[in-house]
Amino acid sequence: MLFRCRVFNKPETRQRDNMAKRVAIVGAGVTGLASIKCCLEEGLKPTCFERSDDLGGLWRFTEHVEEGRASLYKSVVSNSCKEMSCYPDFPFPEDYPNYVPNSLFLDYLKMYANRFNLLECIQFKTKVCSVRKRPDFTATGQWEVVTLCEGKQESAIFDAVMVCTGYLTNPYLPLDSFPGINTFKGQYFHSREYKHPDIFRDKSVLVIGMGNSGTDIAVEASHLAKKVFLSTTGGAWVISRVFDSGYPWDMVFMTRFQNTFRNSLPTPIVNWLIARRMNSWFNHANYGLIPEDRVQLREPVLNDELPGRIITGKVLIKPRIKEVKENSVVFSNTPKEEPIDIIVFATGYTFAFPFLDETVVKVEDGQASLYKYIFPAHLPKPTLAVIGLIKPLGSLLPTGDTQARWAVRVLKGVIKLPPSSIMIEEVNERKKNKPSGFGLRYCKALETDYITYVDELLTAINAKPNLFSLLLTDPRLALAIFFGPCTPYQFRLTGPGKWEGARNAIMTQWDRTFKATKTRIVQESPSLFASLLKLFSFLALLVAIFLIFL
Amino acid sequence: MLFRCRVFNKPETRQRDNMAKRVAIVGAGVTGLASIKCCLEEGLKPTCFERSDDLGGLWRFTEHVEEGRASLYKSVVSNSCKEMSCYPDFPFPEDYPNYVPNSLFLDYLKMYANRFNLLECIQFKTKVCSVRKRPDFTATGQWEVVTLCEGKQESAIFDAVMVCTGYLTNPYLPLDSFPGINTFKGQYFHSREYKHPDIFRDKSVLVIGMGNSGTDIAVEASHLAKKVFLSTTGGAWVISRVFDSGYPWDMVFMTRFQNTFRNSLPTPIVNWLIARRMNSWFNHANYGLIPEDRVQLREPVLNDELPGRIITGKVLIKPRIKEVKENSVVFSNTPKEEPIDIIVFATGYTFAFPFLDETVVKVEDGQASLYKYIFPAHLPKPTLAVIGLIKPLGSLLPTGDTQARWAVRVLKGVIKLPPSSIMIEEVNERKKNKPSGFGLRYCKALETDYITYVDELLTAINAKPNLFSLLLTDPRLALAIFFGPCTPYQFRLTGPGKWEGARNAIMTQWDRTFKATKTRIVQESPSLFASLLKLFSFLALLVAIFLIFL
Repeated sequence: MLFRCRVFNKPETRQRDNMAKRVAIVGAGVTGLASIKCCLEEGLKPTCFERSDDLGGLWRFTEHVEEGRASLYKSVVSNSCKEMSCYPDFPFPEDYPNYVPNSLFLDYLKMYANRFNLLECIQFKTKVCSVRKRPDFTATGQWEVVTLCEGKQESAIFDAVMVCTGYLTNPYLPLDSFPGINTFKGQYFHSREYKHPDIFRDKSVLVIGMGNSGTDIAVEASHLAKKVFLSTTGGAWVISRVFDSGYPWDMVFMTRFQNTFRNSLPTPIVNWLIARRMNSWFNHANYGLIPEDRVQLREPVLNDELPGRIITGKVLIKPRIKEVKENSVVFSNTPKEEPIDIIVFATGYTFAFPFLDETVVKVEDGQASLYKYIFPAHLPKPTLAVIGLIKPLGSLLPTGDTQARWAVRVLKGVIKLPPSSIMIEEVNERKKNKPSGFGLRYCKALETDYITYVDELLTAINAKPNLFSLLLTDPRLALAIFFGPCTPYQFRLTGPGKWEGARNAIMTQWDRTFKATKTRIVQESPSLFASLLKLFSFLALLVAIFLIFL
Repeated sequence: MLFRCRVFNKPETRQRDNMAKRVAIVGAGVTGLASIKCCLEEGLKPTCFERSDDLGGLWRFTEHVEEGRASLYKSVVSNSCKEMSCYPDFPFPEDYPNYVPNSLFLDYLKMYANRFNLLECIQFKTKVCSVRKRPDFTATGQWEVVTLCEGKQESAIFDAVMVCTGYLTNPYLPLDSFPGINTFKGQYFHSREYKHPDIFRDKSVLVIGMGNSGTDIAVEASHLAKKVFLSTTGGAWVISRVFDSGYPWDMVFMTRFQNTFRNSLPTPIVNWLIARRMNSWFNHANYGLIPEDRVQLREPVLNDELPGRIITGKVLIKPRIKEVKENSVVFSNTPKEEPIDIIVFATGYTFAFPFLDETVVKVEDGQASLYKYIFPAHLPKPTLAVIGLIKPLGSLLPTGDTQARWAVRVLKGVIKLPPSSIMIEEVNERKKNKPSGFGLRYCKALETDYITYVDELLTAINAKPNLFSLLLTDPRLALAIFFGPCTPYQFRLTGPGKWEGARNAIMTQWDRTFKATKTRIVQESPSLFASLLKLFSFLALLVAIFLIFL
């Protein structure tokens, strides 16, 4: 599906539309789409500028890296399962696998865009060159947006701007930290350039960095390469999508019950429990993966294959690199030189907003001073929102959707933000990352507790389900919400943008989960022993009840 | 390493060698090598005939299938870990990975052959055409062995024969069970023909049969193929090499303690416990894999990736096939036709001994009437032994080695077998596979309980370690033997062929295991909470002891 750049919804013509606020949205990825939809829901007039020729952002795989757009490798699969990573009012088709490969994910985004008529608000092949405050900004809060479409520059005025460009566009390649890299005669590149594993056939490969990409690439290379080293300084907890008893990891881990439990315990106990949990699949120390810093939680790595590749010797875990030589590398734990043909730097990304002036959003130490991760705290008018500049330990789709719902209500003026000084104070407090002493402690900027954060936004728009009153009116639903996986449908149960199908979606979430994998069904004939055990337990229960009431 | 066929150790010349018995060994695979070594240890004169030009049998990967020899695919990795699958007196090098890829496994076999000078007993490129009883067999027990080497036929007389050809040579391809297969226009072949996954690129693939090969092939195909179906009628328990807390599965599962425990419980309870254990990784019913027959144990499937491939939709589990059409297949649970380009029949193997007369060994229903799975029960002289015709739930190397040790002592005349009638009765009893009511119950011919079987043979040659006396003389060793993994070194601790290094190998088995994966070490700083917990447990223990003795 290719789109030509179209110019409609032009601000000039829209000033006559009884003054509905015009919103410029930068980027048509997952958060851009959610932002368009939220604008439409609240009666605003969105115009989304997308520099490429199709929607999907990160999720649209191309054989070649496109400048300014996140880049995927062919085999990427979602880290968050379909029931946890859908838009809150648009479940994935039930025959989709639980963890969705990128091509299907893109199809889903297109279905979403079609279902809610989002396409007609998108101008493709249009690059946003600058977003500048209008001279009368203090009074109007308006922005001048300059765009470039097929060589033609245009300028338009908007009442508000939603920046949805994500944080995966600028590769971070710290070559200075690798002495000798300039003398290296093999091939090296950033993980962003990686597309297919064929390049690794019969080579000795070194992957530097153990985030999700680095781990995926090392594992994938290990099926073809002669030898694969995965170098990590900090280590990481590695989780499998196939969690306890095979349930999707996030459906087990992300429940309101577990979150409440974790957040009410002192951090050392939580860390100890997390370490126990993480080590139950495999002991991270024995596999060379144990995190160096176990006080602050780094985002865990999702990978189903890594320990299997380590135990069969296909991937070797190594500490940091001491020196790169012409055709080899020396690791810090041994003077031995390991011959290397290809180095992949999976060293992550930095983000920036080249179209924004530093006085609007300034990025420092991988952070921007954004109130609730969304609004620049110091602007006199809250008419610019950054959506999706956050790394919740959960999916970005429902997080972005909830951010957009709240932000749109702020842009519309229904919700007032606190005074600048208070917002700045809150932001600075967050930046200090001071331990509260309870719950998990995240080590990085942008990482945050998914449920707590979304609940905060939901509360602000009066859309957080009230568990106590639900317990009286609809106890089955209340229990599913509290003890079951915190699926996105919960966020659209009530409040503005409420979805009528939410309750049903919650009650059938496990059916859709099993539908994808239970593709061969065997009639269960319970064993005699299991039946006896059940009978015995039942009798014991009866006796106990009898004794209690005696 | 190529070997020309050499003719030495010729029987004629050896009759002068003060009458040491001459033993013909058929095949230089893992059991053939063990047999040569056991013959040498006991002062017999072995001549091993190997039809190919190198040793290793099954473990020697070639790009093309060779007639009469088992065939591997490129990615095969051992299912049994290095500490559990070595020859009892020859541990794997300590830097080997825990589960050894086929090329390294072959290197290990070559090291073994070199270490014990086995090569000079092997005649390569020599096919055994027939092994026939000599006319005076009832008196001498001798055999006439006719071989063919580079077009030249030779005949020689041997005092004994050890058949080490294995059971993976003849593919079983039950096309009749797949109506419509003749009309299929795609490609189909037996798993034996499979070498590399590239043939599956962008194809729709159907793998029939869920043994280890079928599962490996489906998983491997799923990295490249458009779609992969894995069809299984019976289902299977799937285990990961990465078992509880990441320990190699067989080092946890195969302990004398666990074996004694399992074998003293009624079968239904054992089955229930096994099912619980197997489902703790992932619920087999939810993944469509649950075994249909849970009363008798089928050999479990070893695969680290399958559930991860199912949960991401890369492999779809399907029940049996109803019909094959020109370009598609219909499964029994839905009338929907699934387009298929390639069908792989991973339907297993049958075995036969083309060089033996049916009156010597007759194969019926996948079984031969062999006493202790080794000696034809009806022969008047026990001078022919079949080594390695067994599927222990464990490694074939130590099993074959122990079989050979016992068999050689029988061939030598040191150990007498019971009368034919008793042996025949025992074999018939085993064939009935009557449930004992206790322990595991295996559903297939040749499958047997590893530790119990090896112990039986060890007892017969007086080489079973006596745990009770060890407990008094060397309690650390006794505990390691009983509670630790039942590693092969235990089998050569004592008795004929005793290995001096056995004790040390047992006491260092975990070091060698961790050496392979603990390639990045982080200084552990125990958390305050964990330290407090330990202190508290210690105090509680003290109090308990104090109260007991009060």
